[in-house]
Amino acid sequence: MNAPERALGPRPLPAAMLAALQARFGARCSTARVVREQHGRDESPFDVPPPDAVLFCESTEDVAHAIGLAAAHGVPVIPYGAGSSLEGALLAVQGGLSLDLTRMNAILRIAPEDLTVTVQTGVTRKQLNEALRHDGLFFPIDPGADATLGGMAATRASGTNAVRYGTMKDNVLGLTVVNARGELLRTGSRARKSSAGYDLTRLFIGSEGTLGVMTEITLKLYPLPEAISAAVCHFPDIDAAVRTTIQVIQLGVPIARCELVDVNAIRALNAHDRLGLREAPLLLMEFHGSPASVQEQAETVQQIAAEHGGEGFDWATTPEARTRLWAARHHAYFSALQTRPGCRCVTTDTCVPISRLAECIAATVAEADASGLPYFIVGHVGDGNFHVGYLIDPQLPAERGLAEQLNRRLVARALAMEGTCTGEHGIGLHKMDFLLDEAGAEGVAAMRAIKLALDPGNILNPGKIFRL
Amino acid sequence: MNAPERALGPRPLPAAMLAALQARFGARCSTARVVREQHGRDESPFDVPPPDAVLFCESTEDVAHAIGLAAAHGVPVIPYGAGSSLEGALLAVQGGLSLDLTRMNAILRIAPEDLTVTVQTGVTRKQLNEALRHDGLFFPIDPGADATLGGMAATRASGTNAVRYGTMKDNVLGLTVVNARGELLRTGSRARKSSAGYDLTRLFIGSEGTLGVMTEITLKLYPLPEAISAAVCHFPDIDAAVRTTIQVIQLGVPIARCELVDVNAIRALNAHDRLGLREAPLLLMEFHGSPASVQEQAETVQQIAAEHGGEGFDWATTPEARTRLWAARHHAYFSALQTRPGCRCVTTDTCVPISRLAECIAATVAEADASGLPYFIVGHVGDGNFHVGYLIDPQLPAERGLAEQLNRRLVARALAMEGTCTGEHGIGLHKMDFLLDEAGAEGVAAMRAIKLALDPGNILNPGKIFRL
Repeated sequence: MNAPERALGPRPLPAAMLAALQARFGARCSTARVVREQHGRDESPFDVPPPDAVLFCESTEDVAHAIGLAAAHGVPVIPYGAGSSLEGALLAVQGGLSLDLTRMNAILRIAPEDLTVTVQTGVTRKQLNEALRHDGLFFPIDPGADATLGGMAATRASGTNAVRYGTMKDNVLGLTVVNARGELLRTGSRARKSSAGYDLTRLFIGSEGTLGVMTEITLKLYPLPEAISAAVCHFPDIDAAVRTTIQVIQLGVPIARCELVDVNAIRALNAHDRLGLREAPLLLMEFHGSPASVQEQAETVQQIAAEHGGEGFDWATTPEARTRLWAARHHAYFSALQTRPGCRCVTTDTCVPISRLAECIAATVAEADASGLPYFIVGHVGDGNFHVGYLIDPQLPAERGLAEQLNRRLVARALAMEGTCTGEHGIGLHKMDFLLDEAGAEGVAAMRAIKLALDPGNILNPGKIFRL
Repeated sequence: MNAPERALGPRPLPAAMLAALQARFGARCSTARVVREQHGRDESPFDVPPPDAVLFCESTEDVAHAIGLAAAHGVPVIPYGAGSSLEGALLAVQGGLSLDLTRMNAILRIAPEDLTVTVQTGVTRKQLNEALRHDGLFFPIDPGADATLGGMAATRASGTNAVRYGTMKDNVLGLTVVNARGELLRTGSRARKSSAGYDLTRLFIGSEGTLGVMTEITLKLYPLPEAISAAVCHFPDIDAAVRTTIQVIQLGVPIARCELVDVNAIRALNAHDRLGLREAPLLLMEFHGSPASVQEQAETVQQIAAEHGGEGFDWATTPEARTRLWAARHHAYFSALQTRPGCRCVTTDTCVPISRLAECIAATVAEADASGLPYFIVGHVGDGNFHVGYLIDPQLPAERGLAEQLNRRLVARALAMEGTCTGEHGIGLHKMDFLLDEAGAEGVAAMRAIKLALDPGNILNPGKIFRL
């Protein structure tokens, strides 16, 4: 698919800037085709020429130096983490320099006594949780992919635990950011709350690299729950599973995870992981707390599920069984891709008020079934957020067009229900028109004004979120 | 106390604008001295001339019209709610028009099925909770004063329940805002999460009326806990109370409220409310959850308190007893003011990482005792946030100077401990220099750039948060 913004014209990296980069960074600045191409694609369906060069940054100072040069030369810089964007957020639509932050993966300071940790933004969530385990702590945000914490902050990511622990917006205490002039900014503090001026932390979170490049991040941590229990429950149809979820949320049960997997995704998982799951829609749930509280929550939910025809409430109480369960959930996307070799996935990300979720999913399923496109649905239904993945043949423009049309209809439905076009994936290249519908011309105008105030040369990840 | 910003010179309301306001709004636009003076003071120790006129707004359209006029005439507009700012946030330091929003007190829509409510921003927190009671829901943020929800959002307020439910930043889903051109902006949605572009909602929260005037707000609600239990526990000294708190937080006990009251505040409360409390530092605690979970939490905390010499764990399980307890906590400020007739209060608001709280309070108490000034301490210690109230004689500049000096030392200490100068009261007029120390020149420069981008004429509550 062609990205619309490439039309604005590339701003390639001039030889003088390349020479300056190579003089300072040597082989860490690469123009090798394979390296550039690796940094020029993500999980989105867009095909865009790669960046002109890639710099492997190892420190905040590296980032600051590179952005200083880019500012002087008017060249785009695009931060790169795990490359797992679903919306083209990391594509070099106007050319320029990709800043690979994956070597900035130091865990700088674990403060168990304050339940905080400070890391470089190239640390991934799995690496972080591995490092925290010895202290009996964890960081709950889990978008599925082993994304970097910088990428997760940049897209305001959430995932399976958000129903209980919130999203990245709720779990970042402070940031170190390099601004468009190559200067350092420190936002927030290690205090749990603050009313000190504008909330720059929250402004950078979700800005997709367009306002600054985050290099360090201080996060809230949580004690590992005393007891954890996970369960799988099958339902006669999606509606029954969703109505169970709605009632659980409305009752205020502090469920930690509540995930929907549809029959298409289950078939893919069975084929790929040999899971032998029953081919019926299922909810994957997890409960955190004291042993007594976990039992209480589980009993409440089991009763609600039974009232909706839920069957086979299978428990996974050992860490191994739980890990297998969540690995399966996280494999849904890649398992589904493998059911149609060579396909690309157009992924939707709407989120609606919980009371409208059953209606929204039902209408979406009806449209998807009628379309004839292969698709699957997984969802963080406890948040009102679900993803339809349309598996399209990239050689067939008609399929792409159809998937996009279905996405547009779904977004229109979600907005009419007072929801959002994106619960957690971000706008990137893909949803700029949706953002206009959602935030209105005045809202997008405010975003543009902020962008131009903080990045007048439009060098920070240009062409994303909105058109300037 | 003279406010520094008045030096920038007033921008009084011209006769033509006043005529236009009176033509449209009649008696709702007042220049009566008593009305202006009422809108020209708050709970801060600053004495500033009142606004030139007050407009009693009844709708978003009124606000938009007034700001449109103000923009055309280059006149400051200052939103006014309950008048309970402690930092001079509502003072008309450059003259102009006060927008009284208290008549915009309609509860527009309660959606129990989604746990959301939409209200006009002149609704107060007590009014809201009264309206929610029939649905078994509540809004937890409780700053003590019966502030308006607009004022609470504007200062990123929190208060006694924040340790469990977060602050205003965590509990607002969306806003209707009138921008500096008098246009309407709608931010957020009714979905529980979103990654749709810059987080304008969070940018307006805590901006103290300097970026736009909020007229409607959509909030998250919570089911009234099945069980609530409150307790009072006395300690041999402040340090023991604080160390108990630290351990409770570090263990991850989901305590709903954890408040410190020092001996000076207890004496004031006993004198004012005849409470007959023992004259020893106390923690006021509240637990929310299922009956089993509340009991479990309380037992854990009781055990920790006992290890620190806590005594007389008195329970208040009836709603009446609880209300009396929290009313007493909220009266601490006014009770203390009455111990020194004619005094003004210089209130501090630092917040530090929980591990540094005991050390921070101990050093602060030592300085306060040595100063000879009357003072009291209350604190949302579960958040690491506490307030020292210095009771000064406004006729004695030396006392004012001394209180400010003590505040400066406390802020320096909190910042050295990686905390913040303000946990919940905001910057207002009072803490502009502290903000520079905390956010750094680059951070404040970013805030200024955003302000100028969204309000180039500097008409929205000018002279607050930072100097332009």
